Formats: sequence, structure tokens, C-alpha cells
Amino acid sequence: MGAFQEFPQVEAGRLYNKLSVRPSSLEVIPAVIEKAVRTSIYGRPGSCYIDIPGDFVNLQVNKNSVKYVECCLPPPISMAEHSAVSKAASILALSKQPLLIIGKGAAYSHAENNIRKLVDLCGLPFLPTPMAKGVVPDNHPNCVAAARSMALQHADVIILFGARLNWILHFGLPPRFRQDVKVIQIDICAEELGNNVKPAAILLGDINAVTKQLLEEFSKRSFKYPSNSEWWKRLRVKIKNNEERSKGLALQKSLPMNYYTVFHHIREMIPKDSILVSEGANTMDIGRTMLPNYYPRQRLDAGTFGTMGVGLGFAIAAAMVAKDRAPGKQVVCIEGDSAFGFSGMEVETICRYNLPILIIIVNNNGIYTGLDANSWKEMLKLGNPATCVPPVSLLPNSRYEEIMSAFGGKGYFVKTPEELRNALKASVADKQTPSLINVMIDPQSERKKQEFPWLTRSNL
Amino acid sequence: MGAFQEFPQVEAGRLYNKLSVRPSSLEVIPAVIEKAVRTSIYGRPGSCYIDIPGDFVNLQVNKNSVKYVECCLPPPISMAEHSAVSKAASILALSKQPLLIIGKGAAYSHAENNIRKLVDLCGLPFLPTPMAKGVVPDNHPNCVAAARSMALQHADVIILFGARLNWILHFGLPPRFRQDVKVIQIDICAEELGNNVKPAAILLGDINAVTKQLLEEFSKRSFKYPSNSEWWKRLRVKIKNNEERSKGLALQKSLPMNYYTVFHHIREMIPKDSILVSEGANTMDIGRTMLPNYYPRQRLDAGTFGTMGVGLGFAIAAAMVAKDRAPGKQVVCIEGDSAFGFSGMEVETICRYNLPILIIIVNNNGIYTGLDANSWKEMLKLGNPATCVPPVSLLPNSRYEEIMSAFGGKGYFVKTPEELRNALKASVADKQTPSLINVMIDPQSERKKQEFPWLTRSNL
Amino acid sequence: MGAFQEFPQVEAGRLYNKLSVRPSSLEVIPAVIEKAVRTSIYGRPGSCYIDIPGDFVNLQVNKNSVKYVECCLPPPISMAEHSAVSKAASILALSKQPLLIIGKGAAYSHAENNIRKLVDLCGLPFLPTPMAKGVVPDNHPNCVAAARSMALQHADVIILFGARLNWILHFGLPPRFRQDVKVIQIDICAEELGNNVKPAAILLGDINAVTKQLLEEFSKRSFKYPSNSEWWKRLRVKIKNNEERSKGLALQKSLPMNYYTVFHHIREMIPKDSILVSEGANTMDIGRTMLPNYYPRQRLDAGTFGTMGVGLGFAIAAAMVAKDRAPGKQVVCIEGDSAFGFSGMEVETICRYNLPILIIIVNNNGIYTGLDANSWKEMLKLGNPATCVPPVSLLPNSRYEEIMSAFGGKGYFVKTPEELRNALKASVADKQTPSLINVMIDPQSERKKQEFPWLTRSNL
Amino acid sequence: MGAFQEFPQVEAGRLYNKLSVRPSSLEVIPAVIEKAVRTSIYGRPGSCYIDIPGDFVNLQVNKNSVKYVECCLPPPISMAEHSAVSKAASILALSKQPLLIIGKGAAYSHAENNIRKLVDLCGLPFLPTPMAKGVVPDNHPNCVAAARSMALQHADVIILFGARLNWILHFGLPPRFRQDVKVIQIDICAEELGNNVKPAAILLGDINAVTKQLLEEFSKRSFKYPSNSEWWKRLRVKIKNNEERSKGLALQKSLPMNYYTVFHHIREMIPKDSILVSEGANTMDIGRTMLPNYYPRQRLDAGTFGTMGVGLGFAIAAAMVAKDRAPGKQVVCIEGDSAFGFSGMEVETICRYNLPILIIIVNNNGIYTGLDANSWKEMLKLGNPATCVPPVSLLPNSRYEEIMSAFGGKGYFVKTPEELRNALKASVADKQTPSLINVMIDPQSERKKQEFPWLTRSNL
Repeated sequence: MGAFQEFPQVEAGRLYNKLSVRPSSLEVIPAVIEKAVRTSIYGRPGSCYIDIPGDFVNLQVNKNSVKYVECCLPPPISMAEHSAVSKAASILALSKQPLLIIGKGAAYSHAENNIRKLVDLCGLPFLPTPMAKGVVPDNHPNCVAAARSMALQHADVIILFGARLNWILHFGLPPRFRQDVKVIQIDICAEELGNNVKPAAILLGDINAVTKQLLEEFSKRSFKYPSNSEWWKRLRVKIKNNEERSKGLALQKSLPMNYYTVFHHIREMIPKDSILVSEGANTMDIGRTMLPNYYPRQRLDAGTFGTMGVGLGFAIAAAMVAKDRAPGKQVVCIEGDSAFGFSGMEVETICRYNLPILIIIVNNNGIYTGLDANSWKEMLKLGNPATCVPPVSLLPNSRYEEIMSAFGGKGYFVKTPEELRNALKASVADKQTPSLINVMIDPQSERKKQEFPWLTRSNL
Repeated sequence: MGAFQEFPQVEAGRLYNKLSVRPSSLEVIPAVIEKAVRTSIYGRPGSCYIDIPGDFVNLQVNKNSVKYVECCLPPPISMAEHSAVSKAASILALSKQPLLIIGKGAAYSHAENNIRKLVDLCGLPFLPTPMAKGVVPDNHPNCVAAARSMALQHADVIILFGARLNWILHFGLPPRFRQDVKVIQIDICAEELGNNVKPAAILLGDINAVTKQLLEEFSKRSFKYPSNSEWWKRLRVKIKNNEERSKGLALQKSLPMNYYTVFHHIREMIPKDSILVSEGANTMDIGRTMLPNYYPRQRLDAGTFGTMGVGLGFAIAAAMVAKDRAPGKQVVCIEGDSAFGFSGMEVETICRYNLPILIIIVNNNGIYTGLDANSWKEMLKLGNPATCVPPVSLLPNSRYEEIMSAFGGKGYFVKTPEELRNALKASVADKQTPSLINVMIDPQSERKKQEFPWLTRSNL
Repeated sequence: MGAFQEFPQVEAGRLYNKLSVRPSSLEVIPAVIEKAVRTSIYGRPGSCYIDIPGDFVNLQVNKNSVKYVECCLPPPISMAEHSAVSKAASILALSKQPLLIIGKGAAYSHAENNIRKLVDLCGLPFLPTPMAKGVVPDNHPNCVAAARSMALQHADVIILFGARLNWILHFGLPPRFRQDVKVIQIDICAEELGNNVKPAAILLGDINAVTKQLLEEFSKRSFKYPSNSEWWKRLRVKIKNNEERSKGLALQKSLPMNYYTVFHHIREMIPKDSILVSEGANTMDIGRTMLPNYYPRQRLDAGTFGTMGVGLGFAIAAAMVAKDRAPGKQVVCIEGDSAFGFSGMEVETICRYNLPILIIIVNNNGIYTGLDANSWKEMLKLGNPATCVPPVSLLPNSRYEEIMSAFGGKGYFVKTPEELRNALKASVADKQTPSLINVMIDPQSERKKQEFPWLTRSNL
Repeated sequence: MGAFQEFPQVEAGRLYNKLSVRPSSLEVIPAVIEKAVRTSIYGRPGSCYIDIPGDFVNLQVNKNSVKYVECCLPPPISMAEHSAVSKAASILALSKQPLLIIGKGAAYSHAENNIRKLVDLCGLPFLPTPMAKGVVPDNHPNCVAAARSMALQHADVIILFGARLNWILHFGLPPRFRQDVKVIQIDICAEELGNNVKPAAILLGDINAVTKQLLEEFSKRSFKYPSNSEWWKRLRVKIKNNEERSKGLALQKSLPMNYYTVFHHIREMIPKDSILVSEGANTMDIGRTMLPNYYPRQRLDAGTFGTMGVGLGFAIAAAMVAKDRAPGKQVVCIEGDSAFGFSGMEVETICRYNLPILIIIVNNNGIYTGLDANSWKEMLKLGNPATCVPPVSLLPNSRYEEIMSAFGGKGYFVKTPEELRNALKASVADKQTPSLINVMIDPQSERKKQEFPWLTRSNL
């Protein structure tokens, strides 16, 4: 059976809150909030749940009896022990086909500067996990994301910076990895170390602090992986081939458009420092390849569990923070049409707070039936809809952009590259108004053929 | 503290499924479904949860190894013991100010014919709970719904037909009931008997079967409560006064319209046998008074827990069944604007299956701030939206009807009685197309003043 | 897979309390207790859990503010509908090989007199489930418990009085039952009807009330199953054979004694109206056959889930009630040595309250290793006990009776029938002192060979 | 309300397993066990729960298909960041009234050598929490356990080595601590930092590694707290007074003995390297003061939650490990009579495995009624035991030692210091036989008067 069967707790453990707390009186609410905030940022970051009893909403409190508390100290930083750092450096230095994998833990710990220095200093190929994109910019010459499968499959030493060997990384197991791959794990969470693969070295500590330790170690050793190695050559060939295939797809002129064409134009038209939010199956997946991140912590996607319906909430939260700390920053929320349906009513919230959000729906008509809207209606008249409509289909040709205009935002319905570019241009220009672009694409549009199936299940 | 505090289990018990079952193999799915269906309809009706593991979706099964099972027998019927029936009849016969309360258990057990006979035979005033409306038609002369508070407060004997003494019936306690009220409880569920009030008689059994037992008893005794009693006179005066107040509010000409006006026109324009679905605070509450039911099991509202967001799901389920068993029947779903927001995206489902649903949004702009849309936008430009927009407000002047047109249904935006009547007429006439009427009402429109606060909390 | 796999909820549902309630203040404790008591006795009897917060123990309350409540009415009685009664009677009247099964529901509803009348009136063979023993006395000539397997396997019509078709009754499925058996179910709980087998008739109601309805029906029809039928002949032959085999085992003279010998003497020496409590594997199982009950509700055993460790708690509860309501009544608690170990320390409670309890440990030295105590000690000296002692063994020759004398009760260590009879005589004679008889039996003693394995798993 | 009310999650969080895992097939059991063991020892140590389905017990597996896995690497070690170490050292160096508190985290991380060096190097007063006793020997001259309340109350800087500010340390709040106390926290678990008190410095990492960092820091700074400071003088006076009071109680000649006398003799007679297990209220509490530990990880008591019934299980586990790794080591399990009753039947397990365990029951007859055994029996004859026996009492004069002899161990009943010394001598001399000493003490014997109530509740 599959990975979720085998180790449900490993994955599911992340579903739970770090803390679930219920204040017993109004007086202690500040203390409860301090505890929740502190717990969520100390150690491995995670959410906390504060359950304020409904009865409290209308209660009154004597302000003098409230127990105010100060804000907590910045999160404590821990480092790996010296011997583990040294061991990791030795293993890496002996590697013939090294690979550095950057996980979202690296983003959380603000390790971008040090990881970039390490990549540059040692000349290592690197690969980001989806939410680690931008820790080192996707256009850095050492990024081998376009040769991901090959890099994973042939690396002899892999060093993980806050990335877990879960299903997104195929559990670190054959056939997606070499049987004899040496894994070096850097993580803030001891319990993640050794999961699924026995590592060659384990470095427990804050990702940024440990990266700094490695930098110091490599500064002393002056290790540089040669850029003309066989490994780099193979990777560069693969990257070139893959990028050309993507480019070919992106420049196809036929209509309706395909995914690659749509992402190509989005990439060209949106500001480079936009916060990207993404969900959907193909939309999120292809978007990971086609939409580059140049800055850390600017990509939010459905994450480890692939939970749909989170995109608009993420976009709203990102825009609220951005409005406060980075006025003028654009949030671009790219959604499959099915994913949008989970919480599309949040458009009302976006408009109510007038947030700088551009929603782009890459609309392949759900899982399409091949009918146009009129034939669909005819079909419905003939029989019981419960039996004649496939339960996993959505209504074709839905005008999602009208949901935006219903609440005072701007809606665009686009079918061609020109229409798409015009709509993107107008949306980005008018930061005062939320907008939604409903992009009709070819229902047959698919991801490029992959060598391995999408969902990796543990060999266990 | 309140009732939910005191007896969380009593109420919360209803939240749980009667059965939660997970098939261990594909072969036993029919047996599991038979069990779930049977459990949901035997005894007190309730939901069952079948958890089919995700892995099963793509498994194959040898058809010969499947354990098919026959459909279960019709639900068993139980009756009350004779002495309890006789005792109940005696208590009722001696009552000076009797009241019959019909609960949704009466609807579930198809007791409408026998309860109506009993009401007519004995000349008793009756009151339906929200989902029992229509068991006896709301326009029956013995219906005292328009004098509800007075009827409850002064009755000396109350007989409950499948209605529970929970918060909706104010726990059966003073000041909403007489301290010395004699309660006769008829219920299919033994554990409901005696909750909150010690009854004078308890009749355990199927509501319809027990009603028949009572009918037989009263046929022998030939008991008839006099229609010229003091109690009837007081009730009739109260009814007349209340109806006149409602009528006065309904006929107000000022704009924007109030709730009563809106419901008045809906009542006149929709088919009498429509299935009514309702949710929202004032919308559901005032609608209980203003929108009559003439048939049983044709009203679905948020029920005991007042859970918002269920309306569109209820409407879809009702329409699917109606399309199959009662073609041509109209489902009318009356929603507050806040309630609609919980699951407004279900409009896509409605349109996908082309269901005969008319959604009416009684739109008071959420909890309004007093600003028009322009002033609102100005305000947003001035500051951080998180602090300047009240968190419980919705966006004013939302054009919910465009959500319907986005998916191919018909949307109407109405501000006057004439527009409302035209929209209702058009919607009802075109059964082939789902429609949504967005009715703008006066944000200050409120329920008539009540003698008691809305939410009853237990004295306990 | 097995039954527990297939329908965990069906069985496990019984594990949960009917009500779990936590008073929110001292004032409402009486109301909470009334609710718990009422809920536990109304409908299908079951336990309720009252969770009184630890903080309450030291709180004070103003007695005037306590909400006292009256005791609830006696449980309501419901009856089956007439047509179901009539249908059941017709099916039974046509049966060639009928069988009446009495479940503990019959005991709970005090149906003993009416069921006995029915058995006598109609001449039907009957079988009690373990906790229904004594509803009709085990020595009634129509009791076919000694031909249990055969009766179940060949009956063409079975009528269940408050007995469930769970694993104890082999789910009512082949090969333990005929494929074409017609099942008539009488139960107070609608949700139990139709489980595992589609019944020929379902009668929902209080067991006693429904039995009375059946009695009335059969009085009219004057149905009497002929005592000289082929079915009765076969059953009587089987009963005779089985009883002779048991008797043979009971009268064996070899030492150590076997189970049958021990139970034979217990049966002869204890008062006929003793309350029997029992747990253990073979001890409980063989005891069900060898120890007759002559009165209803006087046998407590581990029940549906076979939970070990409940025996001493049951005995204490039974003795506390007996001391109050039936002074002089003896409680006899028959335990396997393994079962006793789960809560043997409760002997202290028994002695503290000086309860009229006689504990008999039928001691086969756990799952014996074949060593005597000295060889055992030698073995332990040789190696790591964790590896040389089988984990499922108990210490041989434990002197459990000393646990009783440690707390002031009387302990007996017996190895022969004479010692056993003397100890039983002394224990029963001195009702003022708790006692414990530690009976050493042959570790190889086993149950008679059975035609079917012990644990039935559902075909599903 | 109290601390448990306020922050149930903080405390209760520790109740849960770090991992709860259920293997999906026999083949993966080794992988599941590796994961459970690794998870339990990586990061903060804690228990894991492996739920092996009952059906697996009788399944067979092809050995070749089993996925064997290697044992995990030793737990990773993390260190605090340099600046935090430096800050902590500076704060400590400026302290006028410093206090070092050693928690069980220090024991878990094997920090004993480095903490002792630090205590010696800097001349600091220290205090162990109950399960940290022995990390530095209790007879070290810097141990201020005998002046615990005063040390806590007046320290101006406190440095915590793996100790939490939970109720056992009075939440670090007034009146038990100074309002302005500066707290330095060292912990392996980030989420523990900052609980209840805002620390002056937080050092996240392995306790031993961080202690080493501090040692290095102080080696450079050559900080030594003067042994003739006012603070040391006050502490020494308090220690002397308290020790004299204890000694006075210990040497009292009156009979029955008091707690202090009993512990005094136990302390003198048992080997210094015994593993001490303890539970009970006064027994555990006074034992913490009166029974010294000279080695780390040799004291097991009921811990943070004060759960009773764990003592015998702890003793068995400790003895199994000791038998393997430290043959000849004595386990001494000191129990209150009430605590023993929770799992007294485990004596059978102790005897079955012939474990080197000496159980000492400090028997104050539960919460005594003042009756001797005969008067007690008389009382029981008079009335209903349920009402005449106080529910929190135990049976007086229980002969618990007979429970040991029932299973072949040695039991002693002692009432005087001489009998106690003889029994201790004999028990310790015969390591081949488990023994139990039942020590009768004065039911009125109490703890010395304390300045503060036993259970600290949070001010919050």
C-alpha cells in the first residue's frame, strides 16, 4: 500500500496545531495570545488554535484586572554540533554528483543569504521544493529545477536544508533516488531526522545558523565543485532540453491556449516581486516550473497535503500583511477552476477590504465532458441530472470573472494571448481595484509527459 | 450560564452521526450501505457517515465476490402502552388552557392525517415548530402560531408530538411557560422524555401510531374542547392583533422595503406547494411567521443548532429528489446575505444540474455601517482595512445576482415591490432556469419587538 | 477479515456511554444526576458518565441555590404494532424446527413471567444467551442449552427476545445457522433490527410488553408446538449425550481436578439463588454450561466484549445492592487466575466493606509451562527473565487465598474435591466474612471439544 | 482559577505520545519500531505508542518480504547560539543571589559531569527537581534543597537546566519567586521557553552541550560566586535549621513511628546506588527530602502529573534493565499504602521474574478513621457499609506483606525501628528474593509545616 497508509502519523502529524488553547476568563486572553504566538514561532514554525468561548463575546471586563504580558523574545537559535558539521562537509567534498535541496524550512529561517553564498562558494547544483522557490532565485545558474527528476535520481550525495523526505521528495527511495545515495539532513526538528532513509549525517539546528557553520567549514577547506564535471554537463543538457520543450509549448499559437502559453505571458507581465499564491492540480504543478520566484517567502501553495480551497485565504492574508509592510506589492493568485470553487465567495472579502489581489483562473472547464454549453443544457433536459452529469465535472464556460464584478472588482474573460496580456496589463496597472482574469484554455491541455507517476507511494 | 453550557451533551449529542462506518473491502460496500440506510431511518431518523477510503476509488473488484444485500424492511412501528394513552387523554380532557405542539418528529413519521383529525376532533389550538410547519396547514383555523408566546406562556396542559423541550421551546421553563404546566410528551426516542421538565405523561412510540391511539381514545370519550372558551377568545384576540401588526408592516410603502413587505410578496407569488428552504437570522426567523406551509416536510431550515451555510445544500438535495419524484415542483431558497456567503459557490452546482431552484437573498447589507459604496471605498483608501472595516460587516450593495448569471442562470436586482413581483413572476414561470433575486431592503429593518430575548438559556 | 474488522462501529458503539455530562456548577448537580439516571434506564439501558470537575470537591454552595429535581417517572413502555405481532405468530406457527432465543434485553425488561408463559403455552425449545440465563430457569425441560450448536444450526425459525445477532450468536450466519433460517427479532432498539441478517419480522418495543402481545395472540390461536416432533426428539438425544459427557468429566476422580469436577461441586454447594459473577476464558465459558441460574438478573459476566478485570467490580456492586435489598444473599465470584490478576487488589475493598462475597479462583496456573515452582526458580537464575519466561505465563502455585487473609477475610487452598466441598461449606456458612477459595486444577484441563472454533467472524 | 484551568494544554500536552503509529502489514513492523524508537529519543525524549492490530498476532509472514531497517544514529546534538551563551553568562556574573535549578532534562542529556564542573567552578547554589536528584549528588555542599522555598523566593537570577516553570516550580511566579527575578532558560524544546515568565535569556539546545558552552565561557571569564556572600550565609543557616528539624523528627523514639524516622533508617540501610522509585502523597513528598540520590537517573517518581499507580511498573522496568546492565543493583520502591493499592497485583509479576525489588509500604492506614480493626468490624455490622465507611478510607491494619509471601517473596510486618532495620538488612542481603516491608506508622504523622500550600496554582 501507499505512503499515507504506512506512515499516516508522519504526515498527519503536521495537520495538528502546535497548541490548542482556550482562555478560561477574559483576563487571561493576552497571556493566551502571547503563548500562542510564541509557540507558533519557536522551534519548527506551525499554527496554534485559540478557542475563545462564544459567551465571551458579550462579556465585560474590568480593564485593571486584565493580565497584560509583554511580547516574547525573538525565537531562540540553535546550532549543530561541530563534529556533525565537519562530517557533513567531508561527505560533500568527496561527492561525485552532489545535489543541494532547499526546503521551506530554509525560507522560514531566513537562510537565503547564507545558502546563496554556499551555492556560489562551492558551485553546487541546487533544487528548491515548491515553497522554497526564491530562497535562491530560480534564475540562478546553479538551479537545476528544470532537470529535477534526473538530479534526484543520480545524485550520490544530497544535502537537505529544511526539506523533508516525504512524498513530495518521493521518500528519498528508489527508483526516484539511488539506493546508495548519501543523505545529509539539516533540520530544526529532531524528529524529522532519519525518516524513511538512514542519513549519512544529521545536523540539528536552525537552518540559517547551520548553513553559516557549513560556510565557515567550507571557507577553511576551500572546497569548490568543478563546474566542468560530467555531472554538471549532463544536468545542463537536460535543463536545456526541458526548457526548450517548455518554450515550444509556450509559443504555440493554436487556440484555445495551453497551460504553458498562459504561464509564459503571466511571467512576462507581472512584477518580479509579486507574491504568488497557487492551487489546483495542473495549474499549481506546471506553475511551479513556469513561474519563477526571485525572492524568498513569496510563494504560497497548497503544500504537503495538497489541500484545495486554501488559495484565496492565503492571498487575503498575504495582501493584508503586504498592505501594511510593503505598500504597492502585488499579490497574484493563480487558481485552477476547480480549486477556485472551494472558496470563491472570498472574493467578497477581497473587495470589502479592497485588497491588491489579482486572481487568475486557468479555466480548463473542470474535467471536461467535451460538450459545449448548449449541448450540455440539452442533455440535462433529457434525464435525471444525477445520472447524466459526471459527478467530477464542473459547468463549462462559467464566467467566474462576473463574481469579481458582482462585488465591485474588475473581471476579464480572455481567450487569446492578446486578451490575456491586455487584461494582465490593466490589472497590474490598477492597484486600487481587485481583479479576476478568467482564462479559457484547451480542456485537453496537459502537463508534459513525466517519467514517473505523479503521486509517489512509499515502498514500505 | 446558558443552556449550552449546562447540558452541552444533550444538544451536542445530535451533532454526531447515528453510525460512522468504514468498509474494510470493496466487497462489503453494499452491506455497509444497507446498514447505513437502515440505521438512518430506523428509530429516531438521523444521518450516518460512510467513510470510503480514498484508495478504494481506483481499486477493481471481482463482481462475483461482492456481497449484495437486499433493501431493508420498512422501519418498525412501535406504540405507547395503553395506560399511558389513557392517562394522557384524561389530563388533556381536564385542561382549561390546552396547547398541542407539533414537532418535526411528527413530520418524519408522516403523522399529518392523524394529527389533523385529532386537532379537528378535539378542537385544540396547535403550534408547529419551524420544521413541523405544514403537518397541519399553517392556515388551519386552530393554528395559534401568531400568538406563540402567549400560547406557550399560559397553557396549562401541553402535548408534544415529536417536539423537544430544547432552547427552541425555551426548555419548557418559566418565564416562557407556567411553573405548573402539565406536559404530555410523545416521542420515538425514550431518552428525550423528561428532559428539562418532569412530564405528567410520557408516551413512547412512533408519533403517527401514538396519535392514532389517542384518536381512538378520544373517539370513545368524545372529548371536544369548546371553541368559545375564554382561552380561545384570548388567543384569537392576540392572533388578530399580531396579524394586523404584520400586515401593517407588510403594506408599508416606504423604500427600501422592510422584511415584512418582502415576505408578503413572496408569499403571494410562489406556488403554494413550493419547498421552502431558509437560513439567516432575521430572514429565517421572520420567514417562519410570514411564509406559510400548507404541506408537511416542505420546509427545511437551519434547525436546532442554527448552523449557517446549509441552505444551498438543502435546496440542491430537495431539488434532486423533487426532479425525480415530483417534476415541476419549485424549490424556493430564502437566504440572508450573510448566510448566502457561507456557500454561495454552490450556485455553480445548481446551474450545472439545472435545478428548479429560486434563490431569494433578502439583502440588508450584512451588518451595515451606514456608508454607501463610494464612501466605503474612500474609507478603505485612508487606512489599514483590518482596522477600519468592522469585522462583522459585509460589503454593501453586493450584486449577488451576478453570481447566478455568471453560471448561466437568471439574476434579478430588485429594490421595489414592483420589481420584486416582476422578478418572482418571471422566475416562477421559467422552471428550466435557476434564478436568484437579490432584494435590497432597509438595513435598519428589524423584527417586530419581542417580549422575550431571542436566545433562551436554561434556568439551570 | 473478521467481524470486528467489518463492522467495528456496530460492536464498538456499545462501548460508548449513552450520555457524558459535566455539571457547570454545584447548583445543577442534582439535575445532572437526574438526567444521567433517567437516560441510563430509558430506552435501551446503558451507562452514563458524569464528569464532576476536580475543583468542585472543595467548593461550597449555598443550599438554597441548589436546583433540586424530582426523581424521574418509571421508564416508558412501548409496544409492537399489531400487524408485526400477527405476522410473527404466523411465521412461528408454520415452523417445523422453531427456536426461541432469550437475550439479556429480556432480563432488563423483567419479561421472565411472560416469556415462561409463552414457552409453556407453545411448547417451544429455548436457549438463553449468557446474561439471560435464569429468565426461564436453566432446569426448565424446554431449555436446549446443552444442545446449543445443533439448535442454532438446524432451526428453521428463530425468535429473538432482546438478543442481538452479534459474534456471540455467530452473526446469525452459515455455517452456524441455516442459510434459509427465518428470524423474528424483538428489540427495544430499532437500530439493532436487521443487523447481519434480513429478518422475516421485526417487533420494536419493550420486550415484556411485546411478549405479552405475543401471548395474547397465541392465546387466540391456541398454537402448541408438538413435544413429540422429530425436532424435539433430535434435540433431546443431543442434550442427553452432552449432559452425559459433562457428567463423566465431572465425576472423574483423578487429581488435579478438571473444570467440570470443580463446577459440579460448586453447583451442589452454593445457594440456588446466589448471584453468580464470572470471568476468565475457560472458567467463564464452561461455567456458562455447568452453573445453572434459576432466577433472572443473577448472572454477571464479561459480556459482549469479553473484557477481563470486571468481575470483582461487578461482585462489589452486586453485594452492595444485595446487602441493602436482599440481606443474606450470597455473591459468588468465579474467576480464572489470569482474570483475577486484573483487579485482585479489590479484595481490600471487599474486606473494607465486609461484603458477602465468595471468590473462587479456578487456578490452572495461567498458561502453564510444565514446571514446578522450584524448577521455575532455577530457570530464572540461569538467564534473563525477559527471555526465559513466556510472556503469557503466570507464576505457578500462586497462593491467591493469602491476598484474602491479608485483609482479614478467609482464604482456602484446595486441591481435592473434599477440600473444595469443605471450603465451600465453610464459606457459605459464614456470611459475615468474605472468603476466597484457590482451587488448583489440572493445567491441561480443557473444554470439551467443540464443533466450531470459539470466535465467530462475520462472513462479510 | 488554577493553573490546570488556565493552561491545560501546556501541561496536558505532555500526556500525549510523541508518535502513535499502527503498522499496515507485518512486513513494515521493523520500520515502524525503528521510527518509534528514533522518535522517542530524538529531540525532547518521550514515549511513542505502537498499535499492532490484534489480527496480526496469528498471521504468518514470508521472512524475505520483511523490510528490515538498521538502528538509527545516536540522537543529534544541538547547541545554543554564542550570543545567548554570552548573555546568560553576563547576567549570571552580575547576580547577587544566584540559583541554579537542575531539571530532569539535565539527567536525560547526561549532563552530570559538566553541570557538576560548572557548580564547582562558579561556586553556585543549586536545587534539583525531583527526578533530577543525583545529577549532582544530593550531599554536594552547594545543594540547597533543604532551603528550597527560601532559595526560590529570594534568588535574583535563576538558571534552569532542563527544568520547566510548571506547577512543580510554582510557575516561576510571586509569591514563590521574586517579581523581578531574572530567569535564564536552557532547554532542548523551544516551545518550553518563555512559558509563564518572560526570560532574560533563552538557550536552545542539548542541555549537556549548552552546559559545556557555558563552562567554556566561564573558563574564559573566570567567574566565581563568593562562598562568603550574604546569600550563602542565609542559605546555610536555613539549611542547618531545616536539617536539624528533620533530624529531630527522625530520632523521635515514640511509637508508632513517623515518616522521618522511617526514612532515616531506610537511608542508612539501603545501598547508596539503589534505584529509588516512589509514589504516594506524603511518602513521595517527604521522601524527596529525606532520601538522597548520589547518582543521576536513579530516581523515578510520579512526575509532573502526580499519577498514582505507576510505581510498581516503574520498579519492574528499572529492575529488568538493571538485571541486564548492572547485575546486583537494588531497586527500592517506596510506596504509600493508598498508592500501592492501585497496582499491587504487580507483585505477581515481580515474583514471576524474580526481580531484585524491595517494596517498602509506609502504611498510615490510608486516611485513618481512628478505629482499630475490631471496632471497624463492629461498625460494619451495624449499618450499610456504603454510608458508614468514609469513601476515602482504606482498611486499617492491612497485611500487605502477605501479598508478597502469597507469590513466594518475603514479607515483613514492622512496627519499630529495630524491626525495620532488621527487615531492611535481611531484604538487602537476599538479592535473590523480592521482598516487601509493611511499615506501620502513626496515622497522625504529617509533613513538617510548610510556608506555602502544596499545590501552586497560576496567578493567571
